[in-house]
Amino acid sequence: RPERPLLRNARQPAPGLRLGRDGGLTFKARIEKMSPEVVDSNPYSRLMALKRMGIVNDYERIRTFAIAIVGVGGVGSVTAEMLTRCGIGKLLLFDYDKVELANMNRLFFQPHQAGLSKVQAAEHTLRNINPDVLFEVHNYNITTVENFQHFMDRISNGGLQEGKPVDLVLSCVDNFEARMTINTACNELGQTWMESGVSENAVSGHIQLIIPGESACFACAPPLVVAANIDEKTLKREGVCAASLPTTMGVVAGILVQNVLKLYRNISSANTYLNYNAMQDFFPTMSMKPNPQCDDRNCRKQQEEYKKKVAALPKEEVVQEEEEIIHEDNEWGIELVSEVSEEELKNSSGPVPDLPEGITVAYTIPKKQEDSVPDVTVEDSGESLEDLMAKMKNM
Amino acid sequence: RPERPLLRNARQPAPGLRLGRDGGLTFKARIEKMSPEVVDSNPYSRLMALKRMGIVNDYERIRTFAIAIVGVGGVGSVTAEMLTRCGIGKLLLFDYDKVELANMNRLFFQPHQAGLSKVQAAEHTLRNINPDVLFEVHNYNITTVENFQHFMDRISNGGLQEGKPVDLVLSCVDNFEARMTINTACNELGQTWMESGVSENAVSGHIQLIIPGESACFACAPPLVVAANIDEKTLKREGVCAASLPTTMGVVAGILVQNVLKLYRNISSANTYLNYNAMQDFFPTMSMKPNPQCDDRNCRKQQEEYKKKVAALPKEEVVQEEEEIIHEDNEWGIELVSEVSEEELKNSSGPVPDLPEGITVAYTIPKKQEDSVPDVTVEDSGESLEDLMAKMKNM
Repeated sequence: RPERPLLRNARQPAPGLRLGRDGGLTFKARIEKMSPEVVDSNPYSRLMALKRMGIVNDYERIRTFAIAIVGVGGVGSVTAEMLTRCGIGKLLLFDYDKVELANMNRLFFQPHQAGLSKVQAAEHTLRNINPDVLFEVHNYNITTVENFQHFMDRISNGGLQEGKPVDLVLSCVDNFEARMTINTACNELGQTWMESGVSENAVSGHIQLIIPGESACFACAPPLVVAANIDEKTLKREGVCAASLPTTMGVVAGILVQNVLKLYRNISSANTYLNYNAMQDFFPTMSMKPNPQCDDRNCRKQQEEYKKKVAALPKEEVVQEEEEIIHEDNEWGIELVSEVSEEELKNSSGPVPDLPEGITVAYTIPKKQEDSVPDVTVEDSGESLEDLMAKMKNM
Repeated sequence: RPERPLLRNARQPAPGLRLGRDGGLTFKARIEKMSPEVVDSNPYSRLMALKRMGIVNDYERIRTFAIAIVGVGGVGSVTAEMLTRCGIGKLLLFDYDKVELANMNRLFFQPHQAGLSKVQAAEHTLRNINPDVLFEVHNYNITTVENFQHFMDRISNGGLQEGKPVDLVLSCVDNFEARMTINTACNELGQTWMESGVSENAVSGHIQLIIPGESACFACAPPLVVAANIDEKTLKREGVCAASLPTTMGVVAGILVQNVLKLYRNISSANTYLNYNAMQDFFPTMSMKPNPQCDDRNCRKQQEEYKKKVAALPKEEVVQEEEEIIHEDNEWGIELVSEVSEEELKNSSGPVPDLPEGITVAYTIPKKQEDSVPDVTVEDSGESLEDLMAKMKNM
C-alpha cells in the first residue's frame, strides 16, 4: 500500500485549524458537525443550504457513507473529487496506474504528479481539499486472483465502520475485464454498484445502476451506447490510443455523482441507465431487467432471492411489474475496440436485446458460452428511487 | 492587475523542459506543434486522437482561439480548466471575487488558495497545468462604468493577436446585472457569446448560445429554466445563501465547453439553448429567435444587419426559416431570489414567451419598460453549426 504523504497547509486558518510545534499549519481536527452557518470560512454552507432549499432533509447523513471507486482516471478522479467536496464519509480508491503527462487532457491530475501512482496522487490532492474525508487507497489491479480476494474483502469490510460493507461501488474503469471483475464481486456480495464509461472516440458516455438480482447486471446484457452517427470503422482504425476529452469525462462524472447523491439522499429517482451523446446533446435513459439465463450464477441466485423477497412483502408493498414494452425493430450496431470483421463480431457476440431507437450495443461479451439466449427486456422508464431504497434496506 | 506568480515545477521532465540557472525546473518552452505521437509524455496525444477517430479534422486549430471567461466561480473555473487542458490558445479571465473556504464544495479551487483573488489563483493553477496557454487576467467588476470600457476594449483587442477581438465570450457569472452587462457589450460589438447558469437550489442549470442579431439576446427574453418540481417558495425562504453542488456545476461547465468545441471545431451542431434538470436527468434543448422589440437598441441594429446579410446571400444559401411552432399552453413558473409575492412578480415581469412543456422562466427582467411586448418565438430545434459558422464568417 502506498505511503501516506505528510500533509501540511491542508487549510488556511479557519475554525478547527491548529498551529503545529514547528509553527506551521498542521492537519486540522475533523469538523465534528456540518454547520449551516453562512460564513466565508464554512466549507459546508452551500451544501447545508440544500436543506433550506427543500432539496434534502438531512444533508449531514452523507458523512455516514463509504464509497469504493475502482479506476481513478478521467472519470474516477473527478468522481472522487466531487464526493470529497460534498463531504462523503469515506472513499476507497483502487487503481494500479501511474499519472502520465498523457493524462493532462482530462481534469484533476497535474503535471507535477507525473510518475506517482494515481491513488497516491489522488489521495494527496483530496486530503488537501477536504481533510474531513477518510481515505483508503489500494495501488493494485483488482483482476488478479490474489488482489480480487483482497478487493472482495475491502468491499465487505471497508465501510465507515471497519467490518461493515461499503455502501456503494463505483466502476470508473476503462476496460471490459475490470468491469466483469467488479460485476462478479458485486453479484457474489449482493452489493449495489454503478457502472460508468466513455467511448473510445470521446464523444459519448454512460452510467448504469446495478442492484444485483433486481436490475440487469453487466453480464446480463452487453453494455449499450447511443449511436453517435459516426462511421464505426473510424473507431477501429489503428486502435492504438483512445481519444478523450475533459468535457465528456467531466459530464459523465457529474451525472454519476449526481445520481449517487439522489440514490443516497433520497433526492429523487435515480435512472438505472443513462447515456450521453455529446454530438447531439442527447441523454436517453432506461431501465433493464435481469436476464434469468445470465452466465453469472450469483446473478441468477440474487434474482431468486429478490423474487422471494418481493413475494414475501405485504400485498400493497409489492412492486408493480411494469408492462414489458416489446420493440418490434431489431436494429442494432456495434462499436468495437479490436480489429475483427463485423461478420466475426456477429458470430462471436451473444444475442442482442431489442433496444429503443438510437441505442446500440457498445461491445459484445467475449467467449460467450454456447447459445444461452438472454431474455433481456428493456423498459423506457426507471423505477422510483423510493422503491429501490426500500428494497435495498430489505436486503 | 495581479502580480504573476513565479512558477516552478510546471511539468516533470518532458520534451521541452529546461533546467534553469538555479538547477530547478523552469517554465518550459511552448510546445510549438501539437503532436499525435502516442507516448506517455505527450499531453496532447489523446486530443490529437480525435482526428484519427474521425471526430475533427484539424484539432490543432484550437490553439488559434482566444476565449474570454467572465466569472471564475463554480462553473467558470471548471470551464477554464477544461479549455486549458484542451490546449486553447488564450484565455482572458474576469472576476473580482476572492477564494473562500465556502467555495470548497465546488471543483477547482483548493483550501490553501483562500484569500487570493480568484483570477490570480486560477491563473497560477492553470499555468501549471498547461504552460502552452496564454493567460490574461483582470481582477475587477465589469459592471462599473470604468471597468466596462476596459472590458469592451479587451473583448475587441484581446485576441490571440493583440488588436484582434476574442473569438468567444463565456458568461459564467451568478447574477442578472453581470449577464446584462455582457449582453450589452456583445450586442454593441456583434460578439458571439455563451451564457451559463445554475439555479439557486443547485439542481438545474442551462447554457445558451447568443449570436447578436441572429438568436435571442439576454434582453430579448427572460432566462429560462426547467421546472424542477420543487415548490418555488422553498427557494425564497431566507434567501441568504444559494445552495451549490460540484456535480451540477461540473455538468454545466462540461456541456458548455463541449458546445464551445462543437462550435469552433465544426464537430456537430451546437444547440442555442440547453437546460439540465438534475432531479430528472432531463436535458431539453431549443433555439430562440431575437425579439424585434428588444429593449437593447444594439440588438435591434444587429437584427437589421443580419436580415440584410441573409437577403444579400445567393438564393440557394438563404437559411430556411423553420416553421414557427405555436405553443398553445401558456403555463409558466418563476424561480426567484428576492422576497416578493407571486403577484408582485407577475406585475413587475415582462411578458413571458410561450414555452414547451417543462420549461419555465428562471427569473424576470427588473424594471421592464412600459408594455413593449416581446414577440419571442421558441423553436424546438436548433440550426446546424455549419450554418452558424458560415454566417459568423460573413460578419
